[in-house]
Amino acid sequence: MKTINEKIIDYIKNHQGFLIITHQKPDGDAIGSSVALGKGLKKIGKKINYFIQMPIEQNLNLFDEIQTFNKITYEEYDAVIAVDCSTWSHTYRPKQMPKFKELINIDHHITNEGYGNYNHIENVSANAELIYRLLDQLNIPLDEEMADALYTGISTDTGSFQFSNVTSETHEIAAQLYKYPFSYAELSRKLHHEKSIEQFKLYGIAVQNIKLINHNTISWTLLDYSTIQQYGGDINISDDIANIGVNIKGVDVAITLKEVEKKIYRVSLRANSECALDVSKIAKFYGGGGHDKAAGFTYRSKIEILLNKIVGDYNIAKDKRNRQQ
Amino acid sequence: MKTINEKIIDYIKNHQGFLIITHQKPDGDAIGSSVALGKGLKKIGKKINYFIQMPIEQNLNLFDEIQTFNKITYEEYDAVIAVDCSTWSHTYRPKQMPKFKELINIDHHITNEGYGNYNHIENVSANAELIYRLLDQLNIPLDEEMADALYTGISTDTGSFQFSNVTSETHEIAAQLYKYPFSYAELSRKLHHEKSIEQFKLYGIAVQNIKLINHNTISWTLLDYSTIQQYGGDINISDDIANIGVNIKGVDVAITLKEVEKKIYRVSLRANSECALDVSKIAKFYGGGGHDKAAGFTYRSKIEILLNKIVGDYNIAKDKRNRQQ
Repeated sequence: MKTINEKIIDYIKNHQGFLIITHQKPDGDAIGSSVALGKGLKKIGKKINYFIQMPIEQNLNLFDEIQTFNKITYEEYDAVIAVDCSTWSHTYRPKQMPKFKELINIDHHITNEGYGNYNHIENVSANAELIYRLLDQLNIPLDEEMADALYTGISTDTGSFQFSNVTSETHEIAAQLYKYPFSYAELSRKLHHEKSIEQFKLYGIAVQNIKLINHNTISWTLLDYSTIQQYGGDINISDDIANIGVNIKGVDVAITLKEVEKKIYRVSLRANSECALDVSKIAKFYGGGGHDKAAGFTYRSKIEILLNKIVGDYNIAKDKRNRQQ
Repeated sequence: MKTINEKIIDYIKNHQGFLIITHQKPDGDAIGSSVALGKGLKKIGKKINYFIQMPIEQNLNLFDEIQTFNKITYEEYDAVIAVDCSTWSHTYRPKQMPKFKELINIDHHITNEGYGNYNHIENVSANAELIYRLLDQLNIPLDEEMADALYTGISTDTGSFQFSNVTSETHEIAAQLYKYPFSYAELSRKLHHEKSIEQFKLYGIAVQNIKLINHNTISWTLLDYSTIQQYGGDINISDDIANIGVNIKGVDVAITLKEVEKKIYRVSLRANSECALDVSKIAKFYGGGGHDKAAGFTYRSKIEILLNKIVGDYNIAKDKRNRQQ
C-alpha cells in the first residue's frame, strides 16, 4: 500500500487544532472522509472542528459525529484540512475564515492543482481510501462508525465497487473494513436502492416516457413540469434516472430532460463506453459541461431541435469513426 | 484463508478425467464456477467435459469456454464434480449418466447434506470463492477469462458486494481478481444494470402500478396478462421488480403479482430487514416456499382476498412483537 505524504503525517503529529472542511453539496465520500478523519484525530487527542454545508442529504445522515458539525469552538487552528475538494473555490467554508497557519489538501481528483501548503493528491477511487491510509499511518484504530463512514465514501464513489476507478487496493481496504461488525448490507441498501415513493414514481414515469430514435441508438425521456410538481418537485428526481437509457441494450446515447421550470429543461447526457460521440461537446455547445461519457446543461428551446442536433452530431461522429477504421 | 478439503485436492491431483455439472437454470455463480474450475483443470492437463443446461441466459453468455459445454468426448470419468448444487435432485445431468468412480460435491449452501463421496460444504458468499481457493491450493494460475468468471460468480451472488453474505474474504478474493486486466466496470454494468427496452418498460409499469396500503407499510403491484404479452412475455420480467417495494422508505412488505396466464398469478413477497412478518409462512399457506425475507407462490383467486390475508397476518405479527417488547 502506498503512503500518504509524510509531511502531512508529521504536521498532524506535531500540532493540535484542526478545522475539517470539504466541498459544497457534500456527497457520501465528502461526509464519510470528514467523519472518519475527525473522529480518528480526536482519538489521539487533537482538537477538531468541522465546517460542513447543511443539511446533509437524508440518505447520508447516518453518523452520530454529524451532531458535532459546525460547532465552532476554537478561534484559531494549526491547520485547515480540506478533503475531497478538487479546487479551493469549490470548498464550503466560513465567510470569515478563522485564523489558521497551514492549509492541508487531501484529494483524489487528479485535476487538483495543489492549492494547499501541504498536498496529497492521488488518483484513487474515493477520498476515503486516502483517509484510511492516513489513519493507518498515524496508528489510529478504527471504530464501527469510522469504518462505516469510510465504507460509505468508497461505496458511493464507486457505485458499490462497479465503476472503473476500483482497484485491487479498493477491495483490500473494504476487506479491512469488514473486520468491524457493521451491517454493510443494510447500509448498501440505503445508499444504493432506497427511495421515497415519490422518487420511485418519477423514476417509473421517466422509464415509461422513454423513446428510442435513430434506429434505437439514442434514447430520450422527459419529466415535464406538472409531473415533477405532482411528485414534490425536482428534489425527488434521483440521479440514477439519467443512466436508464445507456443501460438499454443497443443504446449509445441517453438524453434526459427535466422541465424544472416551465419551458426550462435541465438536460443530462450519458454515452455508453463504446459510443463515438463525446457528449461533453454537445453540453459545451449549449453552455454546460462534463465528461465524454456524462455531461449536462440547461436548455430553453424546442425539444425537437435539440434531438435533431444530437442525432446529427452522433451520426457524424459514428460515420467518421467508421471511415477511420 | 481457509482451505478446501484436502481429500478433494489429492483426488484431483491423482486422477485425470472429470465431468463438471451444476444446478438447473444455471446462474452467474454456477456458470462462473464451472468455467473457472474447468479451464483451470485443463491447464494442469486434466481431461474435462461439462454438462450444463442450455441456453445460457444472454447476460451470462460471456465466456469463450461456454463453446466447449456439452461436448461429451469421454465415456468414463474418474469423478463427476457438482458445483453450487445444494441437492443431488437439483443438479442438471444426463438422463443416462456416463460411468464415473466418485462424486465430488463443492457447494456454499449450508443446507447441503453432503451427497458426494467427497464433499466440501462451506457457507461463503458464492461458490466461486471456493473455486478460487481450490485453484490456489492446486497452484493453478488464473487467466483473464477465469478471473472474469470468478468475478461474475461473486458479483451476481452478492448483488455487487451488497448482500449480507459478503465477508472480508470476499473482498480479499476480489482484490486478487483485480490483478487481471479485465474490465470489471463494463462487466458489472452488464450483470447488474443492462436490460432490454421491454424489460425496462415492464419495470417502469410495475413501479407506476405500485400502491401503498395498511398505512404505507405494505406495497403491492401488478403486471397484468395483457401488459406482459405486450412486452414479449414473462421472460422479460427482470428479477429486480420483486424488490422495488421494500426499497420504498417505510415499506415493510412488498407484494408483486405477475399474471403469467389469465387469472393465474405468480406472486413474489419481500420483507425488509426489520419486518415482523415471516413471509415464507404466507407462501407456504398458498403452497409455495422461500425464506423469511423472500418467498413466492402461485395464486388463482381474487387479489383483494390475498391482500387482506397478508395485511391481517402482518398486523398480527407486528402486534405480537410489540407486546413482547
